[in-house]
Amino acid sequence: MTVPLKAMETDIAATMRGIGQRARAAARVLALAPTTKKNDALDAMAKAIRTHARNILAANAEDVAEAERAGATAALLDRLTLTEARIEAMAAGLEAVRALPDPVGSVTECWTRPNGMTIERVRVPLGVIGVIYESRPNVTADAGALCLKSGNAVILRGGSDSFRSSVAIHAALAEGLNTAGLPEDAIQFVPTRDRAAVGLMLAGLDGHLDVIVPRGGKGLVARVQAEARVPVFAHLDGNCHVYVDKAADLAMAKAILFNAKMRRTGVCGAAETLLVDRAVAATHLQPLVAMLLEAGCEVRGDADTQRADARVKAASEEDWNTEFLDAIIAAKVVDGVDEAIAHIGRHGSHHTDAIVTADQNAAEKFLAEVDSAIVLHNASTQFADGGEFGFGAEIGIATGRMHARGPVGLEQLCTFKYRVRGTGQTRP
Amino acid sequence: MTVPLKAMETDIAATMRGIGQRARAAARVLALAPTTKKNDALDAMAKAIRTHARNILAANAEDVAEAERAGATAALLDRLTLTEARIEAMAAGLEAVRALPDPVGSVTECWTRPNGMTIERVRVPLGVIGVIYESRPNVTADAGALCLKSGNAVILRGGSDSFRSSVAIHAALAEGLNTAGLPEDAIQFVPTRDRAAVGLMLAGLDGHLDVIVPRGGKGLVARVQAEARVPVFAHLDGNCHVYVDKAADLAMAKAILFNAKMRRTGVCGAAETLLVDRAVAATHLQPLVAMLLEAGCEVRGDADTQRADARVKAASEEDWNTEFLDAIIAAKVVDGVDEAIAHIGRHGSHHTDAIVTADQNAAEKFLAEVDSAIVLHNASTQFADGGEFGFGAEIGIATGRMHARGPVGLEQLCTFKYRVRGTGQTRP
Repeated sequence: MTVPLKAMETDIAATMRGIGQRARAAARVLALAPTTKKNDALDAMAKAIRTHARNILAANAEDVAEAERAGATAALLDRLTLTEARIEAMAAGLEAVRALPDPVGSVTECWTRPNGMTIERVRVPLGVIGVIYESRPNVTADAGALCLKSGNAVILRGGSDSFRSSVAIHAALAEGLNTAGLPEDAIQFVPTRDRAAVGLMLAGLDGHLDVIVPRGGKGLVARVQAEARVPVFAHLDGNCHVYVDKAADLAMAKAILFNAKMRRTGVCGAAETLLVDRAVAATHLQPLVAMLLEAGCEVRGDADTQRADARVKAASEEDWNTEFLDAIIAAKVVDGVDEAIAHIGRHGSHHTDAIVTADQNAAEKFLAEVDSAIVLHNASTQFADGGEFGFGAEIGIATGRMHARGPVGLEQLCTFKYRVRGTGQTRP
Repeated sequence: MTVPLKAMETDIAATMRGIGQRARAAARVLALAPTTKKNDALDAMAKAIRTHARNILAANAEDVAEAERAGATAALLDRLTLTEARIEAMAAGLEAVRALPDPVGSVTECWTRPNGMTIERVRVPLGVIGVIYESRPNVTADAGALCLKSGNAVILRGGSDSFRSSVAIHAALAEGLNTAGLPEDAIQFVPTRDRAAVGLMLAGLDGHLDVIVPRGGKGLVARVQAEARVPVFAHLDGNCHVYVDKAADLAMAKAILFNAKMRRTGVCGAAETLLVDRAVAATHLQPLVAMLLEAGCEVRGDADTQRADARVKAASEEDWNTEFLDAIIAAKVVDGVDEAIAHIGRHGSHHTDAIVTADQNAAEKFLAEVDSAIVLHNASTQFADGGEFGFGAEIGIATGRMHARGPVGLEQLCTFKYRVRGTGQTRP
């Protein structure tokens, strides 16, 4: 059996309006759904993913064939292609979200007023979340699961490349919701490749969309950030820095820098610029740079760095602002922690930055003054991840200042309300 | 001495761009300013307000005279007019904010990962806050103080009616900043009555504005919510409900209803609709309605309420959606807590709603299912206030779902970052 594409409706605006209205109605049900019911749905969704693995693979094969005919890059084909192992990982991911604590209803603060009233601040879902993503069909399951567990309805707008795969995965999620007695409209997949659907989501679907999460390349994120009339949880760049201070232990600096740059070069927490304190440039700079070069990393340095190792290319001004997402690093000598902080303020992207030092004062200054979502002392920037933070899973990392900052997990997909309990109090 | 109006620059866009850039630069200084310095500035600001009281009153007299010539309403003239007592209250307000704990740097969560890294979530300022307000000159001081204490720079855009008064008050605030060695650009007042300035603020001042707080009538709030390209902390309506359940003690219901409606009718937490459980309509409805009528409150009821008291006028469908902000209430009989929750869901504004009942189950159901920023059990809706919540002071009340919800005090004017401390950890 192949998964049929749903008939395109001619009036895309009407389609999207209906999706928004149904999502809002489903959100009310989800917000009040007990944990057990949401967990039952996640179990049933994982089961359905496994049961329908063959359908999903068949749909994916059609997507992959089309992408190949269209001359897709190897990287895109790798992101797009599902295997039995990847389908099992998707099902296991649903079970991992099931195992996370339910954020809804948790009391984050509680106090009693002098008049005897108690006030609680309690987590409640945000409402309806829109996820716009590209060519990774597994986002359908991951994002659906995180929104469901956090009590939100979600509208998924997958990439054209992975359209059939996402439709097939979505069918399994809908089956799971249905089995658990939750509304299928809690997780809706936009049933068209028409790009107009994205524009309508960015406009907010008549107030039925509370937040948008873009997952994909910079082009997508930039468009969403520029055009969205609703809040966005996203980061455009992860231009992360490792600053090696004069009081840094060289062995620790090497270990952290190597991990921060080379563990995975394509993740947003990968280091893109190395800053080395001039006071230890003579002893630390060459070994750090040589280590990277010998691991196959291109180094683009300022004049000092080029002098330290002849293999270093000249950095352009633009390199300081660039998220390479590749085995390339920019490198610069700075006059201590103050110049490092200033450089990061000028060129950074408020994502994740680290200092390596044994000097507690320098560390505290860096942690206080670098204005990024995540600042680290003596640890790798690649810890910028919801799982590594203990959030269990994340829908993305945000560099905005409002509501969610850093890894966006279940708790960040919630807002709160105040519950006040009195015994007849009136205001004087 | 009268306060001179600053010369209008012909290029309002250039003026506003400069204000935005200077605010962003000042925000970096403010974010790192120690508590003592901010407190010194608040002290000096209060002192300067008192010292320059005569100048402020003279400027205010010019504003009032102009407003009178333009035929302003008595209500507007009352909001606009300053007296020595009101100036003293303004200075005392600055001292009250000084006495509040500094939110910046407070650690709200802290945990240790299995690999030994500690992660702290610490409050940091939002950045640059825009406040757009109408005809209440004291907002200049109140908003300036709250933003300063929370480490934010602020751009104040006061109403045309109170322009000279606000300029005079702002001069005193600038003097205070200066005395304490903080940048005057931390609190800037838009030096023109040109309405184009508002449009430029709503567009975000080239990314130099992080959030906008509108303070004023519904026309202003609606425009800001519709046009702002940056986040907004606001509420458009405070259509608050008091639901009197079948298990409500009549004496308590009377006390709470009277306070919720009549303590002050013009505040956003004032009750606008009374819902009474049909099961106690025979015993509770008439006494509740009669109490309000006898206090001079107009009651607009459904057929049941009209039958209960002949003085009740017929409610129109629109009355259920109306924030009267006056001695008027809509009243309706409902079939228990479920219909009360449904009515509030249909007609409410997600601001503040209360249930009066001795039935714990009904109370918990109401508190869980009413989707408002503040839900109360056996207490007056007029507690919807930052001061009453123990926040000390508020810049407004928000009904949006993102970041700040309910009273917006010092903590809500902050975001956070994650501080990670390691001993050389790298990610596997």
